[in-house]
Amino acid sequence: MEDIIINFCPTGMVPQKIMTPYVPISPTEIIEQTHQAYEIGITIVHLHAREEDGTPSYKKSIYQEVFEGVRKHCPDLIICGSTSGRNFPEFEKRSEVIELQPDMCSLTLSSLNFLRQASINSPDMIIQLAEKMNNYGVVPELECFDLGMINYGKYLIKKGILKGPYYWNLLFGNIAGFQASISHIGQAIHEISSDHQIALAGLGEFQLPVNSIAIAEGLGVRIGLEDNIYWDPGRKKLATNLELLRRVHDLIDIHGKHFCRSQNLGSKGFYNSARFYEVSEK
Amino acid sequence: MEDIIINFCPTGMVPQKIMTPYVPISPTEIIEQTHQAYEIGITIVHLHAREEDGTPSYKKSIYQEVFEGVRKHCPDLIICGSTSGRNFPEFEKRSEVIELQPDMCSLTLSSLNFLRQASINSPDMIIQLAEKMNNYGVVPELECFDLGMINYGKYLIKKGILKGPYYWNLLFGNIAGFQASISHIGQAIHEISSDHQIALAGLGEFQLPVNSIAIAEGLGVRIGLEDNIYWDPGRKKLATNLELLRRVHDLIDIHGKHFCRSQNLGSKGFYNSARFYEVSEK
Repeated sequence: MEDIIINFCPTGMVPQKIMTPYVPISPTEIIEQTHQAYEIGITIVHLHAREEDGTPSYKKSIYQEVFEGVRKHCPDLIICGSTSGRNFPEFEKRSEVIELQPDMCSLTLSSLNFLRQASINSPDMIIQLAEKMNNYGVVPELECFDLGMINYGKYLIKKGILKGPYYWNLLFGNIAGFQASISHIGQAIHEISSDHQIALAGLGEFQLPVNSIAIAEGLGVRIGLEDNIYWDPGRKKLATNLELLRRVHDLIDIHGKHFCRSQNLGSKGFYNSARFYEVSEK
Repeated sequence: MEDIIINFCPTGMVPQKIMTPYVPISPTEIIEQTHQAYEIGITIVHLHAREEDGTPSYKKSIYQEVFEGVRKHCPDLIICGSTSGRNFPEFEKRSEVIELQPDMCSLTLSSLNFLRQASINSPDMIIQLAEKMNNYGVVPELECFDLGMINYGKYLIKKGILKGPYYWNLLFGNIAGFQASISHIGQAIHEISSDHQIALAGLGEFQLPVNSIAIAEGLGVRIGLEDNIYWDPGRKKLATNLELLRRVHDLIDIHGKHFCRSQNLGSKGFYNSARFYEVSEK
């Protein structure tokens, strides 16, 4: 039985303090919440940088501050940086974070629409980002919002552009993506080799059911305010990152399973360990 | 038993004379091949305009020439114009063709990637195009390359932005879309109400198997050089539009079924008849 990967996503690009006071925005807040989450138990932290005013940032200097702080408190945690192009279309900006050599960086595998905005990831951009990750020894976090993105990922594997190890993050419930239904989830995971790591995310009110399905199936989960700021489907109570994380641990406990410690991802050749920290020390 | 809708797509945006001499480019060629196809039997013609040099065009003047020629020879054929934004991102250009009031215009329901290019259809653009179609009495051809686009279409229906009748064109086999597998096709059609019209397209070598699956299932087909320029999966022989169309009729015959005449789409409130012709006479 595989242990359950927990991918912690505390910040994202969308939540602001005005939406929820619990979202960590400053490097200090992000480092502190990640440290607390690490003590409860997480496998990977998926980080977004923010400017002081709360808007999303691509800047290496901000990522560096966050990564170093997290690394200091969580020496063996797998750190993942975002290369999202939703607010910064240029390759140079999107790919700055890769130069810091975190263990992983996100790689969204097609263009897509969210409810109010298109998110453009052209084939050229995806390939350039993947190649830069290869050059810097960064493992891509393969982010998929629909079946076609999985297919494109498999195509890049076949082409040798993605070289493994393979970690897929499947995000269900976007308005123009696959939905958080058993049949969509089943179809999606069926497409991916059982040799690969898979974690499931549910957006908004779908976070809890998708997490629960993932744990029942022995797959990884992604949890945090990036995907969902509410505790309950009725949206009556705002959640904190740590409350959401503890609920995931409760589910894992009920199944008599364990969460996967970062260093145990090594079984699939995944674990990069404190490589980033060594680099930043140079 | 429903008759089989045949959606004829002779030109598209991609094929050029240098790729296949059989693709109709000039208005005269498009009109002539559509007329011949009409005599063999088609329900809808899905038309793209081209400039004299073969590049894709959004221009109303070219569409008008094509539509009037087709209408002259095929008085009751359902005519559909393309609003593709692959080469013209601006709303004004993309939506010019709607002003001619063809029976239908295409409406692609999200942004997506093709093999070498992103195709951007932001939520705002989709809603603007849908509203302009509503204003001009044009039925949208709901084009979907993945599950999420179907979900977005259902969302627009719920919002009252798409008002029906509903005609879905599901295109399988794009590298970053759902694939031409039984399970993807089954999942996709399962998402759509049985009250709606559905036609299935397969891209490239998947055209024949997807057409065949559609006919077996009693769904519509989309056929023509827009999606596939070869006769055989080995790509040894270039196809003509009429050969491809005749093969679809052979399949329909083998099943003991019939193709759906344009005026018979009326059973689901679809048929607009020669409305365009009346308008252009004014």
